[in-house]
Formats: sequence, structure tokens, C-alpha cells
Amino acid sequence: MAEDSLYLGVDLGGTKIAVGLWAGRGELLGKERWETLPEPRPNLERAVEAARALLERAGKTGEPARSLAAVGVSGGGPVDPERGVLLSVPNLPGWDEVPVCRLLGEALDAPCAMENDANACALAEWLYGAGRGARDLAFLTCSTGIGAGLILDGRLYRGSRHLAGEAGHQIIVPDGDPCGCGQRGCLETYASGAGMARRLAALRRERPGLPATAREVTERARAGDEFSLEFLRETARYLALGLANLAYILNPERFILGTIAVGAGGLLLEPLRAELRRLLWPALLEGLEVVPASLGDELGDRAALAVAERAGG
Amino acid sequence: MAEDSLYLGVDLGGTKIAVGLWAGRGELLGKERWETLPEPRPNLERAVEAARALLERAGKTGEPARSLAAVGVSGGGPVDPERGVLLSVPNLPGWDEVPVCRLLGEALDAPCAMENDANACALAEWLYGAGRGARDLAFLTCSTGIGAGLILDGRLYRGSRHLAGEAGHQIIVPDGDPCGCGQRGCLETYASGAGMARRLAALRRERPGLPATAREVTERARAGDEFSLEFLRETARYLALGLANLAYILNPERFILGTIAVGAGGLLLEPLRAELRRLLWPALLEGLEVVPASLGDELGDRAALAVAERAGG
Repeated sequence: MAEDSLYLGVDLGGTKIAVGLWAGRGELLGKERWETLPEPRPNLERAVEAARALLERAGKTGEPARSLAAVGVSGGGPVDPERGVLLSVPNLPGWDEVPVCRLLGEALDAPCAMENDANACALAEWLYGAGRGARDLAFLTCSTGIGAGLILDGRLYRGSRHLAGEAGHQIIVPDGDPCGCGQRGCLETYASGAGMARRLAALRRERPGLPATAREVTERARAGDEFSLEFLRETARYLALGLANLAYILNPERFILGTIAVGAGGLLLEPLRAELRRLLWPALLEGLEVVPASLGDELGDRAALAVAERAGG
Repeated sequence: MAEDSLYLGVDLGGTKIAVGLWAGRGELLGKERWETLPEPRPNLERAVEAARALLERAGKTGEPARSLAAVGVSGGGPVDPERGVLLSVPNLPGWDEVPVCRLLGEALDAPCAMENDANACALAEWLYGAGRGARDLAFLTCSTGIGAGLILDGRLYRGSRHLAGEAGHQIIVPDGDPCGCGQRGCLETYASGAGMARRLAALRRERPGLPATAREVTERARAGDEFSLEFLRETARYLALGLANLAYILNPERFILGTIAVGAGGLLLEPLRAELRRLLWPALLEGLEVVPASLGDELGDRAALAVAERAGG
């Protein structure tokens, strides 16, 4: 990332969109965000306007020494990174095959690259956060769903059709509970935010006073509530099955866990590490770290920046 | 692989050792093999002698235009490929930290490289066999045990401590049957040759006339025995759980399956493909091939050759 260059990061999600202008070395010069409009095109037009305004405001327009080096997009759905096309966005009809990179790249006259958000977040934690210095790591979102971004041999691994990292849909319980994806027994069905809420809903039928969400469980566990602590330990046991499989297959040096693990901290991570000690061979455990994501609220913005940095060379 | 170069491949297993001399383009000029001697050093001395005799017999000694370009070793145990050291061999005491590449490389005055046999076989099937043309594939041994070699983004992926590809020890049944590795519920416990024999042994307690091994099951299934056909279908269902997880995590374009799948052919592969159609998302299934290894009896020799080719540049 050249210090005298400018990078534009676009975090293109199904609920909100953020556009950030960055100077080299990762200094955020300005940012604009809005709730996602129903149609794709007006959002991209607004992103171009926002970018131009940010460039203007930063007083950099027309300065050739600090021109826009690249645009990076973190897309909230499956992406074709080779064509720079957003293939779809969950729950947003009409967002099919949106040629994001062509539209943004042409309007802003800069190279544009796009990755799905799990991959973009993995890049960001690897370049700026908890993944620094690692050659082989898996980042897991641990949010409503569980998606993974894989950095293998020091580069992002996307898979043959850019679908690698669907680690939330590995089957940890054969013919287990149904998952939103149509399969049964997926890791996500048990250990994601949605999966935790589903397990809680089943328990709340008998005991209505129980917490209803991952956030509530975490809050009550922090206050010492025994049910919530045990619920997090059970969640850790499910999560450990998924991480153990990833470790046997990929032998990474670091697992970086997002949202829910960041919120729960040691209340989830300590039982998770203990369960991994039970499930993994010592040789695989040695040198394997399990850590929370470290970029916090900046993760989404920095995910887009990481993609821009890759695009700008 | 330069056509005018010679490559030596050493298949260093716990039961037998084979040394093959190859001309560029993969022509086998000569081969020697013996049952593995108890101590490592005499085996390596014998490999050097065999290599010198093969070079002599091939009439190439002293011809600078056809000098030995490289030595490749396929090691039957965990390997440190960076140091060229065989870390251990299952069931062979005394085979600890054997500096194979230093000894062979110095004695034969050629660069020497070593990979564990699953990785070497993956390289061989990728370069010369059923994996040709693929960029992302997983080769699974499907022999006594199940080990995998992963070709990702067009190169061998080894993992942070060279332990990647232990796909046979992913946990497909939480707290399932005990595995020889000390864990429970591993894929290998159900779908490997040893796992199949274990499942058969349990059934034979009630019905002693049943087949006892993967080979017997395959033979009887070929003859139309309904128990054996159903047993292979059940094996396919276990194997599919492991392959589905690999597909969700890695999105490869090809699975290449070794020994047992080669022997059973469609009797195992057809129910396996059917089960994968049930377990995988259509987008992951599209463009995913599940094929038997194609190098047959040559696989071990060509695995060593593939490593030599990598070493010789």
C-alpha cells in the first residue's frame, strides 16, 4: 500500500452500505454510509457520488500525486471476483449479476476488485488485525451465519468456483437439525447466531425466562448466569467440531473468530480451546492459536480497504 | 521435466521400498525393490547402491547431457519437506528424524526432495493421472487408512506444520466409534479399509459367513451379493460425509479416490455420487467430479517421480 495513494473501500451489504476513503498506511480520511436502497443501481450511483465528495472534501481531486489508486468492494453475498460481479445478496430480490466493478471502476477511473465479505474480512484481519504474520489461517464470521475466509500459503484461497470457505455448512451431526440452507446438521445450525437463537427458542418453550439471542446469552453469562454460561460451553462444543475438522484438513496456525466470539470473549473461547485440546492431535494443537477478531467496528470498512489494497498492487 | 534428464524416485514405505530410474517424459528405465529392512540406514545405503546400478545399467553414468537431475522420495510417514527429514514411520521403531534427503542427495550428488506419500500421490495423479488439468483437487488414499493430498490454486498445500490433509480424521460422528488415532468418530473409523474390516468384524459376530475385508466385500459385491452391495452403499454414505465437508470448505473441482475406490469402481462411486447430490448445494456439485485414481500399480513409483520432478525444477 503506497503511502501517497488513496484507496476507496465500499462495504456493500444487504442492510447498509458504507464508503470510506483511505490514505496509504490505513488512515481513514472520510466515510459515508446509508441504509441499502432496494435496487442495486441507485446504491452504486450514490457510492460514486459519495466517493467524489470524499475525494473533494479531502482536497485531493486533481492532485496527480495522490490519485485514487484502487477501489475495493466487500460484497454481502456470493461474488465472482474474476469478473467483479456480485451474483446475489441474501433477501434482496433484483440483486442478480450486478457488475459492481465495471460500474464503479469506470465512474471513478480506477481499478476495482471485489470479494465476498467473509473473504474480505479474512484479508483485513490478516493484513491489519489478529492474523498478522500468519501464513495459514481461517477467519470465521460467527455472526448470524458462519462463513469462513481462508488464507492458505500466504494468499486468499477462493476455490474452483469461488465458493470455498462455506465452513458453516460442513455437516457436524449426520441427519441432524435442519439448516436454513436446506441441509441438515450443518455447523451453522448449532453455533451461529441464528443457530443459537434456534436452540434457545426450543428451550424457551419450557422455560420462557431464558435468554433469546446470542447477545442476551453473552450479557447474562457475563453477569454469572449459570444457564447462559453452560449454553456458551455447549455452543463451544459444537464450534469445536467444526474447527477440529478444519484443523485436520488444513493444519492452520490460527483461527480468528468474529462477532459472537468477540462479544463473548473467554466465556466462549476458553471452553472452545479446552474442547479442541480434547479433539485434536497434539501435533496439530501445537502452534495453533484460537483468537477473536481484533478490528472490531472497523472490520467492515477495513475489509473493503484490504480488497482495494490488493487491487491497487 | 526436461526430456534429456534422469530422475530417481524412491518409494520409501514401511513394508517395501522401491527405487525407480526415469527418463524425462516419464519413461521408466529400471527399477529395484525390496522388503523394508528394520533399520533405516541400511535401506538408504541399498537405495544408493540400487540407484548407482540403475544409472550404470542405463548406460548414462558420466554422460553430462543425461545426468541425474533430481531425487524424489515418497515417505510412508510424516515428513518435514523443508528439511527433507522423515519424522517417523508407523509401526517401525527407530525410524525417527531420518535425514533421508541429506543422505541420498549427498551420495548421489543431486537435489533431493521428499513428501509424505499422500501428498506425493496427489502430485502424481495431478501431474500424470486423473487430476490432470485441475487447479483445485483433493486426492484421498482410501487404503488401510484415509489420508489426503490437497492441490489448491495449482500447487501442493501442506499446512503450517506440514500436517494438512488428515481428512481421514475429521469427525463425522460426534463421540462416535473409537479410531486408532485415539479420537472418536473419525471418517477413517468407518470408511477406510481398516474401518470397513472393523465394521464387518462386528457384523460377523452374528453372521460368521459375511466377508471380512474391503477386498472380500468388493469381490462379493461384483458377484451380486446383496449384503456386500449394501455394505458398500453404507460405506459410501460415510465417505460422502467426509467429502461433503471437504467440498464445503475447499470447493474443489475434483475428488480422486485411491485403492478401495479403484477396486470397487461404480459399486462404491455411484452411491457416493448419489449421496453427494443429496448433501451438497447444487452450486458446489456443478463442476465437481468424483473419480478413481488412474495410475494403478504405477502410483507409488510415479508419486516418487512427481516429487523428483518438483525437486529438479
